[in-house]
Amino acid sequence: MFDHSIKDLTLAAAGRHQIRLAEREMPGLMALREEFADQRPLAGARIAGSLHMTVQTAVLIETLTALGAQVRWASCNIFSTQDEAAAAVVVGAGTPEDPQGVPVFAWKGETLEEYWECTGRIFEFADGPNLILDDGGDATMMLLEGAAAEGAGGVAEPGEDAPEEARVFAAALRRSLEAEPERFTGLLRGVLGVSEETTTGVNRLYRLAEAGRLPFPAINVNDSVTKSKFDNRYGIRHSLPDGLNRATDVLMGGKVALVVGYGDVGKGAAEALRGQGARVIVSEIDPICALQAAMDGFQVMRTADAVGLADFVITCSGNTHVISADHLVRLKPGAIVGNVGHFDDEIDLAAAARLPGMQRVEIKPQVSEWTLPVPAEAGLDRAETSFIVLSDGRLLNLGNATGHPSFVMSASFANQVLAQLELFARTEDYAPGVHRLSKELDEKVARLHLGSLGADLDELTKEQAAYIGVDVAGPYKPEHYRY
Amino acid sequence: MFDHSIKDLTLAAAGRHQIRLAEREMPGLMALREEFADQRPLAGARIAGSLHMTVQTAVLIETLTALGAQVRWASCNIFSTQDEAAAAVVVGAGTPEDPQGVPVFAWKGETLEEYWECTGRIFEFADGPNLILDDGGDATMMLLEGAAAEGAGGVAEPGEDAPEEARVFAAALRRSLEAEPERFTGLLRGVLGVSEETTTGVNRLYRLAEAGRLPFPAINVNDSVTKSKFDNRYGIRHSLPDGLNRATDVLMGGKVALVVGYGDVGKGAAEALRGQGARVIVSEIDPICALQAAMDGFQVMRTADAVGLADFVITCSGNTHVISADHLVRLKPGAIVGNVGHFDDEIDLAAAARLPGMQRVEIKPQVSEWTLPVPAEAGLDRAETSFIVLSDGRLLNLGNATGHPSFVMSASFANQVLAQLELFARTEDYAPGVHRLSKELDEKVARLHLGSLGADLDELTKEQAAYIGVDVAGPYKPEHYRY
Amino acid sequence: MFDHSIKDLTLAAAGRHQIRLAEREMPGLMALREEFADQRPLAGARIAGSLHMTVQTAVLIETLTALGAQVRWASCNIFSTQDEAAAAVVVGAGTPEDPQGVPVFAWKGETLEEYWECTGRIFEFADGPNLILDDGGDATMMLLEGAAAEGAGGVAEPGEDAPEEARVFAAALRRSLEAEPERFTGLLRGVLGVSEETTTGVNRLYRLAEAGRLPFPAINVNDSVTKSKFDNRYGIRHSLPDGLNRATDVLMGGKVALVVGYGDVGKGAAEALRGQGARVIVSEIDPICALQAAMDGFQVMRTADAVGLADFVITCSGNTHVISADHLVRLKPGAIVGNVGHFDDEIDLAAAARLPGMQRVEIKPQVSEWTLPVPAEAGLDRAETSFIVLSDGRLLNLGNATGHPSFVMSASFANQVLAQLELFARTEDYAPGVHRLSKELDEKVARLHLGSLGADLDELTKEQAAYIGVDVAGPYKPEHYRY
Amino acid sequence: MFDHSIKDLTLAAAGRHQIRLAEREMPGLMALREEFADQRPLAGARIAGSLHMTVQTAVLIETLTALGAQVRWASCNIFSTQDEAAAAVVVGAGTPEDPQGVPVFAWKGETLEEYWECTGRIFEFADGPNLILDDGGDATMMLLEGAAAEGAGGVAEPGEDAPEEARVFAAALRRSLEAEPERFTGLLRGVLGVSEETTTGVNRLYRLAEAGRLPFPAINVNDSVTKSKFDNRYGIRHSLPDGLNRATDVLMGGKVALVVGYGDVGKGAAEALRGQGARVIVSEIDPICALQAAMDGFQVMRTADAVGLADFVITCSGNTHVISADHLVRLKPGAIVGNVGHFDDEIDLAAAARLPGMQRVEIKPQVSEWTLPVPAEAGLDRAETSFIVLSDGRLLNLGNATGHPSFVMSASFANQVLAQLELFARTEDYAPGVHRLSKELDEKVARLHLGSLGADLDELTKEQAAYIGVDVAGPYKPEHYRY
Repeated sequence: MFDHSIKDLTLAAAGRHQIRLAEREMPGLMALREEFADQRPLAGARIAGSLHMTVQTAVLIETLTALGAQVRWASCNIFSTQDEAAAAVVVGAGTPEDPQGVPVFAWKGETLEEYWECTGRIFEFADGPNLILDDGGDATMMLLEGAAAEGAGGVAEPGEDAPEEARVFAAALRRSLEAEPERFTGLLRGVLGVSEETTTGVNRLYRLAEAGRLPFPAINVNDSVTKSKFDNRYGIRHSLPDGLNRATDVLMGGKVALVVGYGDVGKGAAEALRGQGARVIVSEIDPICALQAAMDGFQVMRTADAVGLADFVITCSGNTHVISADHLVRLKPGAIVGNVGHFDDEIDLAAAARLPGMQRVEIKPQVSEWTLPVPAEAGLDRAETSFIVLSDGRLLNLGNATGHPSFVMSASFANQVLAQLELFARTEDYAPGVHRLSKELDEKVARLHLGSLGADLDELTKEQAAYIGVDVAGPYKPEHYRY
Repeated sequence: MFDHSIKDLTLAAAGRHQIRLAEREMPGLMALREEFADQRPLAGARIAGSLHMTVQTAVLIETLTALGAQVRWASCNIFSTQDEAAAAVVVGAGTPEDPQGVPVFAWKGETLEEYWECTGRIFEFADGPNLILDDGGDATMMLLEGAAAEGAGGVAEPGEDAPEEARVFAAALRRSLEAEPERFTGLLRGVLGVSEETTTGVNRLYRLAEAGRLPFPAINVNDSVTKSKFDNRYGIRHSLPDGLNRATDVLMGGKVALVVGYGDVGKGAAEALRGQGARVIVSEIDPICALQAAMDGFQVMRTADAVGLADFVITCSGNTHVISADHLVRLKPGAIVGNVGHFDDEIDLAAAARLPGMQRVEIKPQVSEWTLPVPAEAGLDRAETSFIVLSDGRLLNLGNATGHPSFVMSASFANQVLAQLELFARTEDYAPGVHRLSKELDEKVARLHLGSLGADLDELTKEQAAYIGVDVAGPYKPEHYRY
Repeated sequence: MFDHSIKDLTLAAAGRHQIRLAEREMPGLMALREEFADQRPLAGARIAGSLHMTVQTAVLIETLTALGAQVRWASCNIFSTQDEAAAAVVVGAGTPEDPQGVPVFAWKGETLEEYWECTGRIFEFADGPNLILDDGGDATMMLLEGAAAEGAGGVAEPGEDAPEEARVFAAALRRSLEAEPERFTGLLRGVLGVSEETTTGVNRLYRLAEAGRLPFPAINVNDSVTKSKFDNRYGIRHSLPDGLNRATDVLMGGKVALVVGYGDVGKGAAEALRGQGARVIVSEIDPICALQAAMDGFQVMRTADAVGLADFVITCSGNTHVISADHLVRLKPGAIVGNVGHFDDEIDLAAAARLPGMQRVEIKPQVSEWTLPVPAEAGLDRAETSFIVLSDGRLLNLGNATGHPSFVMSASFANQVLAQLELFARTEDYAPGVHRLSKELDEKVARLHLGSLGADLDELTKEQAAYIGVDVAGPYKPEHYRY
Repeated sequence: MFDHSIKDLTLAAAGRHQIRLAEREMPGLMALREEFADQRPLAGARIAGSLHMTVQTAVLIETLTALGAQVRWASCNIFSTQDEAAAAVVVGAGTPEDPQGVPVFAWKGETLEEYWECTGRIFEFADGPNLILDDGGDATMMLLEGAAAEGAGGVAEPGEDAPEEARVFAAALRRSLEAEPERFTGLLRGVLGVSEETTTGVNRLYRLAEAGRLPFPAINVNDSVTKSKFDNRYGIRHSLPDGLNRATDVLMGGKVALVVGYGDVGKGAAEALRGQGARVIVSEIDPICALQAAMDGFQVMRTADAVGLADFVITCSGNTHVISADHLVRLKPGAIVGNVGHFDDEIDLAAAARLPGMQRVEIKPQVSEWTLPVPAEAGLDRAETSFIVLSDGRLLNLGNATGHPSFVMSASFANQVLAQLELFARTEDYAPGVHRLSKELDEKVARLHLGSLGADLDELTKEQAAYIGVDVAGPYKPEHYRY
């Protein structure tokens, strides 16, 4: 019923201890447990979750079950599982032989084949899932692409140049199609909706909706202010230096760091690096974000111009191949390259791996040293360069550290819980398409986190509320307000 | 035709020199002049402008005329006019006897009566105005309230408790009604629309639109990213310490500063004060903004709890009476109180002025020392307190300094010019109601300002643009993106 | 008895008001007045003071007189006098016809001739001065060079290339020698010592002492921690942006600022500029300070490489010609150049003024626009450049603003008062040569300033004091401790 | 010949890889190797080293041997050894059976008995050591106390209240005295001097010198600017958040952190915590440092007043019991307490451990949760509190992370190498007593580190050097300059 590698009571006990400490740092989730303890408003919900299986996610899962839901879980990243957290969630109040927790299909260091196998298993409720909780959109993609393949009666062969991920995914669908030709089509019928965690997943959803291919409502949790402006910014501010430190122990102070992209993630990255005394250069494609970077005191350069100056290159773009193989060969020897943006394709390591003479040596898990030949046309005075790559270009804050800290995830995950509640209890209010959570709920999430920071709020007088045309209890800002 | 106090060639020459220096710092406006030099797309436009008559506004006005418009101007604040700028704009290429510039009705230190007299005169084009450019909404209000009064055949008497402003405004309308009973009704017919600069004015417009009382399209310039996130934040970051310094010369380092409100203005204020070594406390009513303040490292307290700890109290709220008379009596002796939010009613000086025993001594223009009795119930060990009030609670960055710097205003005003262009050249695209400028134009404004900061942009490859589903040329973000 | 320009009761009243406000911000001086009110330990002291005649200096002067001293005063800079402060100090409790205050010989905008005339008059006590309070060393220099000239029977003719200052000074000595051939020799006999405010003056004193030419003890006030690390650093952090704003109103955010020298002044300048969102580049000659700058996150470049990139060039070096004419011609058009270091020769404007084709236009007092031809060998694509020079290269924080704020000067001046007390009351403890104030007194000055910042100190237990080998009451650090 | 636990080729290979990466980050040491490669000026030196046995120390050790020295090594802390670094240094070019490196006596997690056993073995050169390289002074103490005991013919019995460390140390001396009654007396004769790394060790040395008990010269490496202001400040800025993250994964942003002590270590700690968005409160006993903290924008409170507000309590004092048991019982539940100051007695855990009802649970290695009863007189509304203690009060940046990063240690260790060179090659220039390295050498260390940060220095012209009275090549500052 769950993966053997985590059938381990010792591991589970260690995980339980960490979960208990994390609960202290997740006031939003704990407040929701308290608020809804009697009501159990998710009774009857069957949630298929695909999200990094960390200690914080364990607190999310156990909040969902405390509200009455049944849950099955996989990680959305092959490296991001904390095995002790997975073990603790699986065992729950039971033993390895008789686990009474939640089925989790995840371990640190899955193969791509195992990854899709695990993802497939989160749907295996007896009655199928009725809700999906997604991070990056892989669970949703599997469901929709699977159903599409079943409709078409086959899976298109990925092209020659397709990344390995695409080929492995196609193979997984093909196996499913052979084994159970109507599987995803059936599952799809029961699904009330999905709540999605990330920019990347949300972008996929908007494109699906535009293409008329999104058959259920999706709640864009990512764009709650208490998610996008907290998780993306303050989470990265915390976990980027943490990942760099654990991976390399290299001083950031006095060094040059190139931050590729100055969205919320880039803003958090730049702030963290400056806070450690690094000199930060930002590259951007969006003139508004670029102007913000300049006004915040950062040098704004083209990636190609800056890449040879940097001791650290950190991608925060949400786009593909923002560090190309051509950029990589121009890196300073000893430079450290990592990604906190989204997918592993922000850095085009695949292209670099195809360069003749390329060498890759693993220094320690998730830290490798790459050596590339420097072509004559680069105009540099060296024949090769070698640099450090973190987590093979995957999210270094997850691969080399433990991801965002609990407090930040409490805000994100409180949004997730509220989104699941909306989809389950107020289904009729949400048509197929992509929705954001209401500002009331967003403000509620913020409010749940103020107390433990010792922050006290003023209250509007009625006169003041009338003056600015809002309710005394909020929401306080127009929809377009940017915070 | 214009006020005598500015019929002064020496003053005009000084203003012209400052305008020339400001042009260097307003790359956005200068680029628009260059782009549209031949086209003169505003030929035929008659713009009635009400906006602080500063050197930067002079560059805006002369950009509008360079694009072909006729313009008449008043300030939107009785203290904010820079007389030399007004003089230079009036004289233009002419002399005091034969001015060839733009009629300006504004001087530093108007009375309230003079203020509304000046505002009235901006409408006096032979054919009436066809566009309004507004800051705070007073020109729009005069037009709409004037027409309403004409429709009703009279002006309602403001209540006993109404602020002096309301009474003076009512008197002005009444005089107009007597002199020319259909004046505003007639003017209204010709107006194609208004572009509005500030949060305050925009809020008024939204309420008018909701009430069905907005008969023309309004463009909300304030909520362009390159306005709200630049002018409000980076402008205040610059001009708040400038105003404090010019007014008081008091060290900010090591002191406690209370920032009331953590919107864009408050964020800029807090950053500036911290950058000078002050310890900043934030008060807020919005839990999201409060959580941002906490995460940015500021203490978040209730105003009433913090007001007795602060050496500086700076209102940034956009609301009324956020510093009440009760707060004022609890101030530390020597505290400095000022407003960079919006109207002068953020600090309830009117109520404080009614306290028995209150004394006010002007130290220098726009800087006064107030002494208030401390009631026994305040539980303090003093019988009175005295504190410094800047600009009588009006915008201190304008009253005690010279407002936002040119570069910031270049971004705001480039938005204004584009908004006027839209209203004039693409009238049919804008129905009555409140509109924001398109993200294309917002990004354009940003782009116009990067070069002079030495910032270079990356460009998306076609592959990358497709990957995130945007055009290579932008816009790059969804409407709800918060920057 | 004092200069006519300040015989003005209105001016004096304005000055008195400012002095009263400044007293609130100078807790160190006010505490010393209180501590020594009865004792009057400076009774019998005749202090010849040469230090910027500002409002803060007025509080210093009146602290010295409150402690019993007779005082005569001049400014140490031709631009730095605040006339209302001078007037208030002169008038004291009297009237212009019957002033009962302190004779002050200073006004804003002296000529060099007037400057030395004023300096000469501070020595004219009936019995001569017995103490000197100096800033930059001009009073001391006049005394020692005057006596030397009297000994030699003549003043050496400055060379052709000597700066104008040197020629004017020589002329002043020559006039004195003719009028009263033993004047300075006589004065010198009565002098118990000098306390010196600045790095520059202290360097002069050390060189005099090394050369065996310092006949009395000198107390190096500059190197008290509560002076050098407070005035130089925190004072500049405050007054540099203040001066830039008042002079130019140009946005610092997003701009490039070159800070020449990263000593305490440079550290304060860099912090202030970064705090306003500027991107700061530092140039240095000292590898330790350069390494500090790098570790603090600033780019460290050679001046010649950076000067063409900067929107602001601020000299903080304490050295001569750190910005040469060759640097000036490479400035970006529109760049703003100013000095907060020490003498006006940090920027070699004298050499620039000799370039053929040079033009200088005064924009407003203390702000001028220089236009210089760009030589072909500069390799730039322009034939000339024009830039803004603040205060003609003199200290811009004094010339364009009002100098350091009162609170910072309270720390510096409390050191001055304690130094004068030491020289007068413990004369025998100080041999000729340069001394620093004891760490006890330095800590005392700090202690006097904590209360008004709301800072509470822990106290060592006896066990803890013994553990680190200090007295419970301090001093707490070894002499070489760097803070 | 060395400890078996590190006889491990796999471990050694891993260590060697890390050493190779660290060499890239230690430009100072590598430059010294290059400069002295031919000369081998330490040939004949026999160095007994006691300093945290980390990867960086491995680069130091191999620099000393590259310069010709023989070396034996122990760690100066029972938790700080990185076993793979020790293994690599031991094996050198050899195998476990035939190691050709340096004898190292150190492993992570020594007992106190083992610790002194290891320290004893660093002296066991055939001809005895002639140099000591010390961190904290334990090697020096063992030598001097050992010789003293031998002179006295016995070891005084530590009192009842003596800490366990003292008893274990006395026992170690007693064993030595029995085994070899003249051992330390003999060793002492050959010692030319010691170079000491830390404030703590240096304080011990000054007290020994004052007491006439220091028979050889000691070089105070700690007070080189490139050590005290770099290692203490920038090292802690890096390694404090690293340690907190690895130990707890708890968000710093938005939290309250109490930094006890605002010397160089406290300054680095406060900067790091603020850089992560924490709100920092500082407590201090020194009014000058307290005033610096206030001017840097931090709240300054008494420890007792602040300790109940803090989420993080970090000791940086260099003193004993600055967090007492009384402070500990007042901590917020969940607070995290750690030390980056010096010895483990900064936090009086020993007293807390004696409180009835105290519980200590190890969460993971070097992280434990303590539960203490809250006495009624604390006036709190809880009967007990539980908090997290890092590394049992020992240095958390070493115990919970990997200590200062290589680059910072390169500066410290370059000072160590230069100090050893001075003691060995210029013995006659150093009398018994405590010396600091010359400013020339300090500047040299800085210079060796600029290149790899991309920092370029200006050079003084002869005119400028003369102007400030220094040599073109430096040193540039007077001895008392504070940087």
